[in-house]
Amino acid sequence: MDGQPLRGFLMPRTEYGGEEYIVVKLRSGYNIGVRVKPGTKIKVIARGERKPGFIKPSLPEHRSMLPRVDIISTGGTIASRVDYRTGGVEPALDAEDLYSIFPELSEKADVKAKILFSEFSENLAPEHWRRMAYAVEEAVNEGSRGVVICHGTDTMGYTAAALSFALEDLPVPVVLVGSQRSSDRPSSDAASNLISAVATAVEAPFAEVVVAMHEGPSDTLIAIHRGTKVRKCHTSARNAFKSINIQPIAYYDLTRDEIKVTGNPLRRRGEGRLKVKAEFDEEVALIKYHPGMDPKLIDWLLDKGIHGLIIEGTGLGHVGVKLYPQIERAADEGVFIGMTSQCIWGSVNMNVYYTGRDLQRRGVVPLGDMLPETALVKLMWVLGLTREPKEVRTLMLRNISGELGEKRWIE
Amino acid sequence: MDGQPLRGFLMPRTEYGGEEYIVVKLRSGYNIGVRVKPGTKIKVIARGERKPGFIKPSLPEHRSMLPRVDIISTGGTIASRVDYRTGGVEPALDAEDLYSIFPELSEKADVKAKILFSEFSENLAPEHWRRMAYAVEEAVNEGSRGVVICHGTDTMGYTAAALSFALEDLPVPVVLVGSQRSSDRPSSDAASNLISAVATAVEAPFAEVVVAMHEGPSDTLIAIHRGTKVRKCHTSARNAFKSINIQPIAYYDLTRDEIKVTGNPLRRRGEGRLKVKAEFDEEVALIKYHPGMDPKLIDWLLDKGIHGLIIEGTGLGHVGVKLYPQIERAADEGVFIGMTSQCIWGSVNMNVYYTGRDLQRRGVVPLGDMLPETALVKLMWVLGLTREPKEVRTLMLRNISGELGEKRWIE
Repeated sequence: MDGQPLRGFLMPRTEYGGEEYIVVKLRSGYNIGVRVKPGTKIKVIARGERKPGFIKPSLPEHRSMLPRVDIISTGGTIASRVDYRTGGVEPALDAEDLYSIFPELSEKADVKAKILFSEFSENLAPEHWRRMAYAVEEAVNEGSRGVVICHGTDTMGYTAAALSFALEDLPVPVVLVGSQRSSDRPSSDAASNLISAVATAVEAPFAEVVVAMHEGPSDTLIAIHRGTKVRKCHTSARNAFKSINIQPIAYYDLTRDEIKVTGNPLRRRGEGRLKVKAEFDEEVALIKYHPGMDPKLIDWLLDKGIHGLIIEGTGLGHVGVKLYPQIERAADEGVFIGMTSQCIWGSVNMNVYYTGRDLQRRGVVPLGDMLPETALVKLMWVLGLTREPKEVRTLMLRNISGELGEKRWIE
Repeated sequence: MDGQPLRGFLMPRTEYGGEEYIVVKLRSGYNIGVRVKPGTKIKVIARGERKPGFIKPSLPEHRSMLPRVDIISTGGTIASRVDYRTGGVEPALDAEDLYSIFPELSEKADVKAKILFSEFSENLAPEHWRRMAYAVEEAVNEGSRGVVICHGTDTMGYTAAALSFALEDLPVPVVLVGSQRSSDRPSSDAASNLISAVATAVEAPFAEVVVAMHEGPSDTLIAIHRGTKVRKCHTSARNAFKSINIQPIAYYDLTRDEIKVTGNPLRRRGEGRLKVKAEFDEEVALIKYHPGMDPKLIDWLLDKGIHGLIIEGTGLGHVGVKLYPQIERAADEGVFIGMTSQCIWGSVNMNVYYTGRDLQRRGVVPLGDMLPETALVKLMWVLGLTREPKEVRTLMLRNISGELGEKRWIE
């Protein structure tokens, strides 16, 4: 960029930028950070006015007649006035803020908004999943009809899986929602995603952890994905999130204002009584097998004392024979090894080929059509419950929250 | 399976099974290995006859009039009489074998068949890529009109990328082909894939490394994927291979016996003179970032002296701030770090968010829309040419074999 002129809107500074940067919103809608060096010239062409939409409206009168929905903010583009990651302001939000940015919300629900934390989602760790689980419990205990969690999209799939396991016998829907493009861009998916998420929290007949994100070319169809089966499959497209090996369990249609259930929900609304089980053991790892991989990587993991390992193998669940000694060592030391596939779609099947059988005899456990990311999170959660090898294996193979497809993929 | 009766065809023993196993072909077409333990009973119900198709035909008379196509076998399901991995026979093959299994081949080409090695593709390493590159060179020097490489599907994408870089100024097409279901199964894709691969080798107007595999629901449409842009995206489906971020560069339509070019080939047939550059540096690693990842993993890799690292980050190319110290250390030590995305689709873009800029300032190089697997293979190849950090960076960012999309993904 050096030596190039840039024309656009100068955005407010944020805590994230530091002193040496300014942020300019380009005509394309994207914000760009510019390092201010000796010689950088900034010329003000005109000054903008505060948009009327940004004046806080008074709360709608009828709000207490509407069902209560809790919106828990954890960071990300979706529920800040302007994308704080790209230089915007006010990561903080309350109900009035939300109604002012997304006026349709005031017709859907009596929103209780809470900022749990404000983190880039790539920085989230199991400790954050724990805090989210307890925040959901609090909302449920206070009578929430459904909970919406605003979340950065980068690791939303991991969090959705974590909450799917941590929130046992959930009686209401928990809807994670993000946006791929900030609400100040013309092509933003923030409003449609958030409104659909709140509507899903109110209207869904099921009670499970789901992700609500933009679907297909239309602006008005939002897919509702099962938390254990969803994955971000595009870096920038609005319809980046895909249900893997199943169809989305529902769609929210904004033109008709209605939810259409298309899958088999795990649990009906109102059944069960929430128990939070949110201990995650971080002494696990996920490795992706590749040609030329050094088997000593697994030795290092074992030396440092991991309690479990998920492998993204090739095809139906394979790794090269060079890794067999390390796999045998892991089994000897009682370390669980689960096999998933880097193909992403389909199921591992380690009963067909000799190599798969060889690996199973050495202690590797095939994890069906479980996503690698979900398998990792589940293993953290299972090891938070028990370290007894047989129990770990049993729980990893038990379908706890829809992570294992019904089809057993024996063709 | 213990205690369960199995009914099916008893298959011949293979070198892979070992003494303690027999292989039974079930009615579904799948072969299953059964461990023979004390107490296992085998009852012969009837004996089969040799199928007429398995009698070697004499070579077609007109064969020397046809263009020469070299078929190099490296293993995998595709070019053995019966899937040797599931208990079949004869991994070895010669031209007569091929004509007997796939009679249509004799109308397409004068086939020169060669067994380079017979390996499960998950066991292939850079050394095998090298041997394939030199086998292609030999065929080209002997006047081949095109080369077909039969390969196991598990790591075919990695090999396709490796050959795309190793075969500089390739004058003929090199077509990798595999099959997801063995040729003795009713739904096998072996014949249609192999015949299309040979036809592509003969007819394609372009000269680059491609993968020919089944496409969509039809039995007669075969997609021709660019070697640097293709990935196995399903464990068992016949249309498992997908071009990522581009369309397939061509299709072969078996109903019309014609190739339809749909993309922009890199090089026309007959241009250039092949130079093999097939040194791959194995002191590299590919790691997939995930919540709870231990940053000390990177320390271990640096301690053991890797020369380069590819990260599969989240979203547009992010990792948690916990990894920053290790990333700084890598940069200090002159170790190349390239960023790709675990989303698979889309491009990394590390100019939009502060976190992306932070990582770039620490030395991480964003690799556009390059596939993680291709980035790994390319880094091995680049480091085989040079260890000078500036040159490594320059080559990694140069579009050498179509690995970087034309669209720069600045939205």
